[in-house]
Amino acid sequence: MNYTIFGESHGPAIGVVLTGVPAGLELDMDAVAAEMARRAPGQDPTATARKEADQVEILSGVFEGKTCGTPLAAIIHNTDTRSKDYSKLKDLPRPSHGDYAGSVRYAGCNDYRGGGHFSGRLTAPLVFAGAVAKQILAPMGITVSSRVSMVGGVADPTEEQINEIILAAKADGDSVGGAIAGTVTGIPAGHGAPDLGENAEGIFARHLFAVPAVKGLSFGAGFAFASMRGSQANDPFYMDGDTVKTRTNHSGGINGGITNGMPLTFEVAIRPTPSIAREQQTVSLSRKADETLIINGRHDPCIVRRALPVIEAAAALATVELLGK
Amino acid sequence: MNYTIFGESHGPAIGVVLTGVPAGLELDMDAVAAEMARRAPGQDPTATARKEADQVEILSGVFEGKTCGTPLAAIIHNTDTRSKDYSKLKDLPRPSHGDYAGSVRYAGCNDYRGGGHFSGRLTAPLVFAGAVAKQILAPMGITVSSRVSMVGGVADPTEEQINEIILAAKADGDSVGGAIAGTVTGIPAGHGAPDLGENAEGIFARHLFAVPAVKGLSFGAGFAFASMRGSQANDPFYMDGDTVKTRTNHSGGINGGITNGMPLTFEVAIRPTPSIAREQQTVSLSRKADETLIINGRHDPCIVRRALPVIEAAAALATVELLGK
Amino acid sequence: MNYTIFGESHGPAIGVVLTGVPAGLELDMDAVAAEMARRAPGQDPTATARKEADQVEILSGVFEGKTCGTPLAAIIHNTDTRSKDYSKLKDLPRPSHGDYAGSVRYAGCNDYRGGGHFSGRLTAPLVFAGAVAKQILAPMGITVSSRVSMVGGVADPTEEQINEIILAAKADGDSVGGAIAGTVTGIPAGHGAPDLGENAEGIFARHLFAVPAVKGLSFGAGFAFASMRGSQANDPFYMDGDTVKTRTNHSGGINGGITNGMPLTFEVAIRPTPSIAREQQTVSLSRKADETLIINGRHDPCIVRRALPVIEAAAALATVELLGK
Amino acid sequence: MNYTIFGESHGPAIGVVLTGVPAGLELDMDAVAAEMARRAPGQDPTATARKEADQVEILSGVFEGKTCGTPLAAIIHNTDTRSKDYSKLKDLPRPSHGDYAGSVRYAGCNDYRGGGHFSGRLTAPLVFAGAVAKQILAPMGITVSSRVSMVGGVADPTEEQINEIILAAKADGDSVGGAIAGTVTGIPAGHGAPDLGENAEGIFARHLFAVPAVKGLSFGAGFAFASMRGSQANDPFYMDGDTVKTRTNHSGGINGGITNGMPLTFEVAIRPTPSIAREQQTVSLSRKADETLIINGRHDPCIVRRALPVIEAAAALATVELLGK
Repeated sequence: MNYTIFGESHGPAIGVVLTGVPAGLELDMDAVAAEMARRAPGQDPTATARKEADQVEILSGVFEGKTCGTPLAAIIHNTDTRSKDYSKLKDLPRPSHGDYAGSVRYAGCNDYRGGGHFSGRLTAPLVFAGAVAKQILAPMGITVSSRVSMVGGVADPTEEQINEIILAAKADGDSVGGAIAGTVTGIPAGHGAPDLGENAEGIFARHLFAVPAVKGLSFGAGFAFASMRGSQANDPFYMDGDTVKTRTNHSGGINGGITNGMPLTFEVAIRPTPSIAREQQTVSLSRKADETLIINGRHDPCIVRRALPVIEAAAALATVELLGK
Repeated sequence: MNYTIFGESHGPAIGVVLTGVPAGLELDMDAVAAEMARRAPGQDPTATARKEADQVEILSGVFEGKTCGTPLAAIIHNTDTRSKDYSKLKDLPRPSHGDYAGSVRYAGCNDYRGGGHFSGRLTAPLVFAGAVAKQILAPMGITVSSRVSMVGGVADPTEEQINEIILAAKADGDSVGGAIAGTVTGIPAGHGAPDLGENAEGIFARHLFAVPAVKGLSFGAGFAFASMRGSQANDPFYMDGDTVKTRTNHSGGINGGITNGMPLTFEVAIRPTPSIAREQQTVSLSRKADETLIINGRHDPCIVRRALPVIEAAAALATVELLGK
Repeated sequence: MNYTIFGESHGPAIGVVLTGVPAGLELDMDAVAAEMARRAPGQDPTATARKEADQVEILSGVFEGKTCGTPLAAIIHNTDTRSKDYSKLKDLPRPSHGDYAGSVRYAGCNDYRGGGHFSGRLTAPLVFAGAVAKQILAPMGITVSSRVSMVGGVADPTEEQINEIILAAKADGDSVGGAIAGTVTGIPAGHGAPDLGENAEGIFARHLFAVPAVKGLSFGAGFAFASMRGSQANDPFYMDGDTVKTRTNHSGGINGGITNGMPLTFEVAIRPTPSIAREQQTVSLSRKADETLIINGRHDPCIVRRALPVIEAAAALATVELLGK
Repeated sequence: MNYTIFGESHGPAIGVVLTGVPAGLELDMDAVAAEMARRAPGQDPTATARKEADQVEILSGVFEGKTCGTPLAAIIHNTDTRSKDYSKLKDLPRPSHGDYAGSVRYAGCNDYRGGGHFSGRLTAPLVFAGAVAKQILAPMGITVSSRVSMVGGVADPTEEQINEIILAAKADGDSVGGAIAGTVTGIPAGHGAPDLGENAEGIFARHLFAVPAVKGLSFGAGFAFASMRGSQANDPFYMDGDTVKTRTNHSGGINGGITNGMPLTFEVAIRPTPSIAREQQTVSLSRKADETLIINGRHDPCIVRRALPVIEAAAALATVELLGK
């Protein structure tokens, strides 16, 4: 299964085409809607005020409620696109956004309104694709879950702490970053390979780094390995009935690029939303001169919580790809 | 440019085939040899005693000293393969090695001698490929460098500290992990895309996670983003003459999956070598019973230093791929 | 540039997503419409009566009239889908259609109405994609053209002959096959490679065999080579000013899988439309018994003329891919 | 399974790397040698006098006689490379060879000796790869066969006729082209898809057009469809016990890009060897002037018979790819 996401934040619609979908999957559209709702804006006092139904319209690849096996196209119409003037973004790139790099890459022809193709809104079709992937995995006993493992420097925060940290940042016109820990259980041993393009870590990385704002990814003990000795890090094998297991899982379920039957565990770093309310230093691309910029509009001070279903979607899609290798 | 690495530690030869090599590159074989020497075993009092010349033989794709543009195949003969009995590895997988996952993946048919296709020895052809990549990049003003950013929990260690930490581990029959920080300078702005398979982070991840022992990868501030606010994390733009630059580089040279012209910076986590001299718990795959294992033979207590040219090779190959997108 | 076509004949919409579109191309929508019109049904007394506007709606990748460089999605709504009962097709596969092979491939879950994803209607988004490709090629001086080289066994037929042959078949409740000769002029020498996946013939084949009803493809003299001697077949070189040319072009502009600067010429065989009005032998898939079938509905007795813009589209897309290799 | 062929006719060695080989296949090296022998030169009074053992050396991916599942690299050393002067080929491209197109493609850096990477000798590793593919297919009951369907314009020639035609051409210092008909039996229904990159015809085309000298490819009735009516062309279904079959097989076992369970039949056109003994017109690339050329050396007047195992190899590799889709 492969996917292509298309769309711009203020164009007619955003969407996704999934190819290689197995035929005969009875799509649970309520489960899809539930995933979409987890990501949707406007559900949370700390989040952006933009409210859109994120109503998915399936154009192809589903017949009488079941997947056909042919390419599955789904779109979400853009409805709440305010007509305000975005044109200054064309000249004054927002720090740490894709504006400047994108204007070079796309020869100044990218749709800059609302971030265009770089918008976090493009994660909506990704969540849709991930919901399909989860439904492919569920009958195999494979589940994908995630939790906020850090926000604003606080490890393993509670809901209450998360809200506090976010609201404090919001009060300062600022944003905060975080991290998400993910787990995929039920992947049998023996998927992946040590080679380029086939190792389990690389396949997960391909999908997870395609999520905007992800700037780090680790498996198992991850960067903590740099402070460990082999005798601590190695996962001792034992027999659990007829099944080979490991007593610890520092390897995150992967050895030599191949799954070993233990839960696949990973963590991603999420950068703070670059859209903050404070004055920032930028440049005028037309005048080639330093400038200051104040970004107006609706912006989440922290996207980490809304990113949970997005990260799960990417992990589910990675798992489907891994199983197909 | 793409590459395929082949070979087993105790087979006749290991090697690599590079496709899409630009034609007309005058290969500097001394520079290639220098890279190979950085990775080679036996050069360092703390490293493994296995001594092999790692002599690269080019079979195709080079004519009269220049690349032809046709597939470039290079092999390294395995010469120092000791005839000792490896057969117990077939039944007793080494903890945190690819032995068990590999035996499932390859239906028990993988060559287990000396780690087979999972051996760190397979990084030799990778370093060769990376040396070619570096020579492709150099005329564009692009350089790749790296340093040990952590070893055994000590950040930014000196050579002296590294030796101490490694020798202490060796004395304990143990090994240590670490981290490597890499930098690619000179990549112009505008390479990559936000999309799956095209974003700069994903392309680097594809190459870096294909290096054995790499269990984490981050760009710019990486996991430190989880403790930062947007006002700290954002990289302010300014004009340096006619060039757009940023005052900080927390983004690691990438915004929205696209290079922004600043140095591309990344860090990888390297797990401790799983081959340690201590008794470990494992299982007998044939008898499905718990067992203990003592690994004999020549093993590095720390591969982080030898991994530097390997990580640079992967980064150079990633850069060449990125520029071709 | 790559493309994915999606949709079913009687679903909500059909469409295409183009990735890797160069940024900044000013899309000439009149030229697009003209191409669409060449393929559209209902324009010709010999062709099917189904009338649909084939109105293309662009959802993404175009901003202020220019391509953004981001994925370009375009859809065509299905409007003239008659509500008649197609369910017997599910049980009685039409000879030489994709019905039976598709029901096996897609576990009986494919949308069989009007041919579903196998419908010739899916060539409409292909023509759209080809129109974009032609506009990418035109500024490079590259043009794609085609003509009916055979219909119903008559070589190089005139319009009058084509009409006669088709109407005679129609009167018999039958259909006729044909062939199309295509030419791409202006491709510079030096594109392609002898290798798998990179040779010019293979790239054209990938695109042309993806067109429904294409069952043969040849380059230059093609199957006539089987009756030629080398002294007749070889194309003598000569200098035309500073340009290397060949006096004949039996090679169809390709030597060793690489373009040689001469026009790229090819021919495709088009099978007769399998939908004919006569009684045919089939089987009942549910009862596993022989059956007879009469296909009702609107069907072209010959698709060769309408296939011209489709074949040109595939050739234009192949050329864009070839130039990117 | 995918493959990369490397090597130049007069370099140290030619070879192939196969990836995605299933693990545990007991390689029958006698069967491999038999396939190699069918292609080898010097076995036939009408063929080239160059004699090489074509001894395959397996470097990786096979352990204790079985495939490991890891990349399988095999090489053939070039032994009979005469030291004669090929340098005039650099300046005087041979008509209808890859010399000129290759010199443009590879910026004049290709190894021109003996055709370099364009040499028909590169089909030796292809035959090796095909022999592995055949051994993968055999246990599934899939067989690949071929026959000379035309030589020098004579359809379905006998061995005697073939020899006569070839010797007559040889006497004239000329060469002859031909065609090969191939059949793959035993592919189950339901493999492939109508889509780009997935249709059965396209997958076969990718492999078959990568064989040097192939300039045409058709399936089933192929170009004869252009002279047929639908009522003749359509393949009536019937039940053979529980199996759906067709009474004719004009479709060549493929409908809608998907196998239908009938034998997959195809035909390829083979151009006459461009190396002929007669004086030919060419150009001097350095002086940009018209020139004449006489090609010396050992050349087959007809490669059609030696191409049989090569075409079968490509078809076997295509079948393995098709089954994996």
